[in-house]
Amino acid sequence: MSAQPVPLVPVLAVVGIGLIGGSFAAALRRAGQVGRVLGVGRRQASLDRALALGLIDEVVDLEQAARRADLILLATPVGAMRAALEALGPHLRPEALVTDAGSTKADVAAIARAALGERLRQFLPGHPIAGSEMTGPEAAHPALYHGRKVVLTPLAETPVRARDWLTRVWEACGAHVLLMDAERHDRVLASISHLPHLLAAAYMAQVSREGDADLRLSLAGTGFRDFTRIAAGSAEVWRDIFLSNRESVLDELAAFERVLGELRKTLEDPDPRALEAFLEQAALARRLWDGRSAMT
Amino acid sequence: MSAQPVPLVPVLAVVGIGLIGGSFAAALRRAGQVGRVLGVGRRQASLDRALALGLIDEVVDLEQAARRADLILLATPVGAMRAALEALGPHLRPEALVTDAGSTKADVAAIARAALGERLRQFLPGHPIAGSEMTGPEAAHPALYHGRKVVLTPLAETPVRARDWLTRVWEACGAHVLLMDAERHDRVLASISHLPHLLAAAYMAQVSREGDADLRLSLAGTGFRDFTRIAAGSAEVWRDIFLSNRESVLDELAAFERVLGELRKTLEDPDPRALEAFLEQAALARRLWDGRSAMT
Repeated sequence: MSAQPVPLVPVLAVVGIGLIGGSFAAALRRAGQVGRVLGVGRRQASLDRALALGLIDEVVDLEQAARRADLILLATPVGAMRAALEALGPHLRPEALVTDAGSTKADVAAIARAALGERLRQFLPGHPIAGSEMTGPEAAHPALYHGRKVVLTPLAETPVRARDWLTRVWEACGAHVLLMDAERHDRVLASISHLPHLLAAAYMAQVSREGDADLRLSLAGTGFRDFTRIAAGSAEVWRDIFLSNRESVLDELAAFERVLGELRKTLEDPDPRALEAFLEQAALARRLWDGRSAMT
Repeated sequence: MSAQPVPLVPVLAVVGIGLIGGSFAAALRRAGQVGRVLGVGRRQASLDRALALGLIDEVVDLEQAARRADLILLATPVGAMRAALEALGPHLRPEALVTDAGSTKADVAAIARAALGERLRQFLPGHPIAGSEMTGPEAAHPALYHGRKVVLTPLAETPVRARDWLTRVWEACGAHVLLMDAERHDRVLASISHLPHLLAAAYMAQVSREGDADLRLSLAGTGFRDFTRIAAGSAEVWRDIFLSNRESVLDELAAFERVLGELRKTLEDPDPRALEAFLEQAALARRLWDGRSAMT
């Protein structure tokens, strides 16, 4: 070891070395803010590739990760987190922090509460709003989080010092960190991520069940392509997201159906002015968002 | 003029020299299948640019276009077609053919029937399924129709010779031509183009009306971007499309809502297996479409 300054994370452990976990390790490595990266995973082939790609330095098990790491990122499906936390808990170093990258946060907080007991203060739920259609360690990239938002949802038990440290770690990856409570996170994500997926899936299912589906699909163009792209996502992953955030998703769906009903009325009893005003509101909101998101 | 073979279209007139009309002229020119291109338009600035870009050779009025052209493409909003057809009708050369590029076809056929009378056999409705978020003559490109679908909806009055000739003209632009009746075209387009627009607009309006819309939109990512992109389209254009195809759009919306209700039930009374099976059907259909559309 040279006389370089101490990195923010002397020892990082990543559980699940795919796009999310691998990119986190790669970003911290490029920023010079990680010493050693330990990798934990179920699939040997993925671990081998992660080693070959230099994303991790060493493969360890959960107990070793807990005994050695300063920071542990759970980059696994939410369904695998309880078992991981139960295996990590008894061996965690007292100053270590565990975080995650799951798409829903109230359920993760509840899982951590059940699995960690009095070690709960060592867990801080998080959600990097970044992704890609690609998966696996090959898709990992040090710039994945650059300019992206990361939401942290501190628990009542979370020490301010831990919150500030994890914020700096994500900022070192190039991300903007937002703090909010888990319930608000879940409502917002239900609105801007889960509901679009639900609607795109329902639409895609409807088209594909029609008797002339082949003709329809043969004429579908770029608008269709973009509108339905998210429907191609993993059914297993999205089933878990919908179930873990079902109340917020159902609330958002109900709100959407009310507004859709208003739009339907302008067509059923044709009202060209009201129809155009509605479409104009939607178009302006979308263009405004484009302008804002281009600035960040 | 040199001793080149006679082009398919000795004299073409394009009414409305934007993306659609300009690209048609450019494609035929590149294919060596047009002699002279006449341009008709309301906005002098657009006509000047079209001349400067070499999309058209000459600016004329509707009467001149009718007196000289072998083929006339109406690349205007559907709302402007009746007046254009009424101005063209009395002066059309007996062997000339008029076609259009509107997004709905039953209404265009009705407009032509009312405007042209016994000249109806000289009108053949068409719809090139190609577009872009860009508009205007600058966006015109000879390759716009390459590999794209063009639907022609011949009327009972349409001579086979006219249908075959227009098919060859579009094929010279690189397009694949499909023939179907206007009603089927409108149902299919309601399904794969108009309904997605309706849903994206309703969704965008709903999100933007929420009290915490700013927070929501600040966390929206790439899935949101793709799902809502079409909602940014012109409110005026889409108002006209929805109104001219309202019965088919309402039918498709009702079919969508039935399927959405089925998906909602798997969440309301949580049924993980049914939910996953539904999502899997949608994901497979979307991936299959991707594979097919990549081949064409």
